[in-house]
Amino acid sequence: MVRLGPLAAARRLLPAGPAGGWRSLSRSWPLRPPGPVGDRGLLSRQARAAAGSAGGGRAPPLKTPKGTRDHPPAHVALRDRLLAAVVACFKRHGAAAIDTPVLELQETLTGKYGEDVKLIYKLEDQGGEVLALRYDLTVPFARYLAMNKITNMKRYHVAKVYRRDNPATTRGRYREFYQCDFDIAGQFDPMIPDAECLKIVHEILSDLQLGDFLIKVNDRRILNGVFAVCGIPESKFITTCSTVDKLDKMPWEDVKSEMVGEKGLSPEAADRIGEYVQLHGGLDLIERLLQDAKLSQNKLAKEGLGDMKLLFEYLTLFGIAGEISFDLSLARGLDYYTGVIFEAVLLQQENEHVEEPVSVGSVAGGGRYDGLVGMFDPKGRKVPCVGVSIGIERIFSILEQRVEASGEKVRTTETQVLVATPQKHLLAARLKLISELWGAGIKAEMLYKKDPKLLKQLQYCEDTGIPLAAIVGEQELTDGVVKLRDVATREEVDIPREKLIDEIRRRLEP
Amino acid sequence: MVRLGPLAAARRLLPAGPAGGWRSLSRSWPLRPPGPVGDRGLLSRQARAAAGSAGGGRAPPLKTPKGTRDHPPAHVALRDRLLAAVVACFKRHGAAAIDTPVLELQETLTGKYGEDVKLIYKLEDQGGEVLALRYDLTVPFARYLAMNKITNMKRYHVAKVYRRDNPATTRGRYREFYQCDFDIAGQFDPMIPDAECLKIVHEILSDLQLGDFLIKVNDRRILNGVFAVCGIPESKFITTCSTVDKLDKMPWEDVKSEMVGEKGLSPEAADRIGEYVQLHGGLDLIERLLQDAKLSQNKLAKEGLGDMKLLFEYLTLFGIAGEISFDLSLARGLDYYTGVIFEAVLLQQENEHVEEPVSVGSVAGGGRYDGLVGMFDPKGRKVPCVGVSIGIERIFSILEQRVEASGEKVRTTETQVLVATPQKHLLAARLKLISELWGAGIKAEMLYKKDPKLLKQLQYCEDTGIPLAAIVGEQELTDGVVKLRDVATREEVDIPREKLIDEIRRRLEP
Repeated sequence: MVRLGPLAAARRLLPAGPAGGWRSLSRSWPLRPPGPVGDRGLLSRQARAAAGSAGGGRAPPLKTPKGTRDHPPAHVALRDRLLAAVVACFKRHGAAAIDTPVLELQETLTGKYGEDVKLIYKLEDQGGEVLALRYDLTVPFARYLAMNKITNMKRYHVAKVYRRDNPATTRGRYREFYQCDFDIAGQFDPMIPDAECLKIVHEILSDLQLGDFLIKVNDRRILNGVFAVCGIPESKFITTCSTVDKLDKMPWEDVKSEMVGEKGLSPEAADRIGEYVQLHGGLDLIERLLQDAKLSQNKLAKEGLGDMKLLFEYLTLFGIAGEISFDLSLARGLDYYTGVIFEAVLLQQENEHVEEPVSVGSVAGGGRYDGLVGMFDPKGRKVPCVGVSIGIERIFSILEQRVEASGEKVRTTETQVLVATPQKHLLAARLKLISELWGAGIKAEMLYKKDPKLLKQLQYCEDTGIPLAAIVGEQELTDGVVKLRDVATREEVDIPREKLIDEIRRRLEP
Repeated sequence: MVRLGPLAAARRLLPAGPAGGWRSLSRSWPLRPPGPVGDRGLLSRQARAAAGSAGGGRAPPLKTPKGTRDHPPAHVALRDRLLAAVVACFKRHGAAAIDTPVLELQETLTGKYGEDVKLIYKLEDQGGEVLALRYDLTVPFARYLAMNKITNMKRYHVAKVYRRDNPATTRGRYREFYQCDFDIAGQFDPMIPDAECLKIVHEILSDLQLGDFLIKVNDRRILNGVFAVCGIPESKFITTCSTVDKLDKMPWEDVKSEMVGEKGLSPEAADRIGEYVQLHGGLDLIERLLQDAKLSQNKLAKEGLGDMKLLFEYLTLFGIAGEISFDLSLARGLDYYTGVIFEAVLLQQENEHVEEPVSVGSVAGGGRYDGLVGMFDPKGRKVPCVGVSIGIERIFSILEQRVEASGEKVRTTETQVLVATPQKHLLAARLKLISELWGAGIKAEMLYKKDPKLLKQLQYCEDTGIPLAAIVGEQELTDGVVKLRDVATREEVDIPREKLIDEIRRRLEP
């Protein structure tokens, strides 16, 4: 049945290149946006041109706002794969999705983010409410729970958030970026939901094969207990916390001098803190601190350590304790955490195929915030919550670099069949055939020309990875057949028109 | 092998209700957000309470910004189904996805939307660029093409847009809403991409089974030709256009008095326009106007009518001409259209099951905008474009009402198995088992209690539609089995632990 028709001759006209079709084409796919995106040189040339023109800036500056970017098709295709893996994990753990507006009342966001309040995008007062763009998905979730009087919910939310940061965009940090949040709200037995959040981080980072990683865990109650037994007044807990949080980026000596110089602690108190916050380990460290003469006298610290022990028992049952480190230097910046806090970091990669390693910070983080919902409830009723946020943008940067290094070409469309004609005056035949294919649910394209050259049509298949071409010429119309061409092998077979849909489906089966 | 174990006794304790499990539960699912969402009465009570409290507004007002709303899980589940159907159609037609920022430079949006410019959300100048929220997805697409010097692209974009409208939110109109856009950019033979856009509207509205619909088509060149031959000066074309556009909402007499009273046309000119813009029909009308003594003398109108004829030929080949009406009253509000314009409306539904019919306007619209990309290009280079936007929010309102009327309960999670225990002190057994299920990719939940009652666990399955319960008790642990319970039939079978995953997969096969 297989015969190479006269159309096969066309392949001789195709540009010389590696055989085997689309997969082996060497032209690399533009994962980075083509053109002047991020090209400061070109942008300033355009700015000069606009300034020098008589019209005085008739064409608007051709850019996206600072810290934001467009995502071309290859980006979106890769990002959608990544988001699908994350959402699959959230659904595997029984979460339901909610959606909240990008806009919130400014008041809703006030007093939730500490010093980061200055990073909130505010809207112009155009007569009406005073609005802002959401800074994360956690505060809107707490508002949602309070507003709807929900006391029990497991939800995920994948959406963009906005921060007027001064990001180093080359490191995968932007002012507009996706967050992928999973949270459990409700009054439950201690550490069971908390352990599930850590399990989720572990599953996602494992599923994505990002290499070795470590999940650091701490508890705000333990930190506060440490500060108390070191003689720090309660009014300085939060500010001391934010200094401790810098221990992953600077050595202890620098952290200490910030404590003493900027935060006004005594050198002795700072040293006492230093003895604790440089500790990290597992169950053994928890046991040791539970025996610590000073810390064991502090109610908060004792509670936190007891829960931390329970958490490690559950993590052991989940089989993931090996990747978890109890790390007293972990503090996290946000005000609203009240208990367990955690952060996942990727460990040094072997960058065999990668020329310039992407420096990434934490790829996931979260914790317990038992007081946030109560801040929204008119009567202050609390709903305990714990949740995790997956840092999808940083993970994307890593995957993007990996795809680029591998030379893999990400297909950006899913078209299965190109409807083509070999002669002129056959547009009507193409329109009728493609309409039949669409009606059967087959993904099909045709070129938007009345009389395209066959070579151009076949070249389009190769360029975009379309596996099949359905070709109707005058002879095929007379014979009541369609010539089905396998783009990779270039084999062509005449298929009776009434069997075409079935044959295409058969060919496309995995 | 099937035996009803002692656990089956628990079902007798379940509240009396229709047999057959979850599907037939009569409790209706809260498609509308539970609680005070949109409940002005309650909101103002809260506002009064806040104003009256000593703290003076300690708890922020518990609401989303005017014209926006939260989407609870049942909303999102239904909306995701709808978006999936739309995106499937866009992919069937070979489109690639792009994403652009929600934020744009204000300058980018200036001069594109006519009088609607006042509806654009502006950001506060916080030192830096002057920003706004995107008003649609078309202008950002044009900016993207110009910025990246792309002259040929078929793309879709599904994302939220922002308009400071005064919407009647009961009619499914909001200030934040999704748009689903499909556009074809590039220099092609006339009307082929335009016909595909109409085919897409037809496919989506048919796929969604929204009942009878009509797609109205017109051409800006025909309208402008009509205005010209009626003696309207070119400077008044756009403003006259926006008055004509109101013909679907008000009778001709009112439209005429707006033309004369507000727009300053002479009554005679208005009457001449009236003779044309009240016409609608198919190929016959096109032929008639091509013979029209005055109109056939106007170059623009003649071009437009010639293309309209071609368009109808292609629509006939696609088999959809029956649902298309050439309607000279269709004008569309936006400035940037230059050729074919269209809009789809649902025809009167038989509302058998619906108590209060939703009044919906157009559910899709679009057209050709050949000049927009050139407005962004520093050298004014044009890229012809045609595209369609699906009005997903209005379609959602219809589907939502239909689901409510049918009593169908939308599942908001996909959990397949609840891991349960019948006795106390078995938390460790549950944690180990659920971890195995997650590892095998099975969607599983457990209650976050150390010692939950079996009845509560089974009730949770019924409430949320989980089809299977995997139960480990002391006896099961001793025997090395897990008791698998079918929640609907309440049948229980002991499965050897090592065969559990396979058995669950077998049961879950469709």
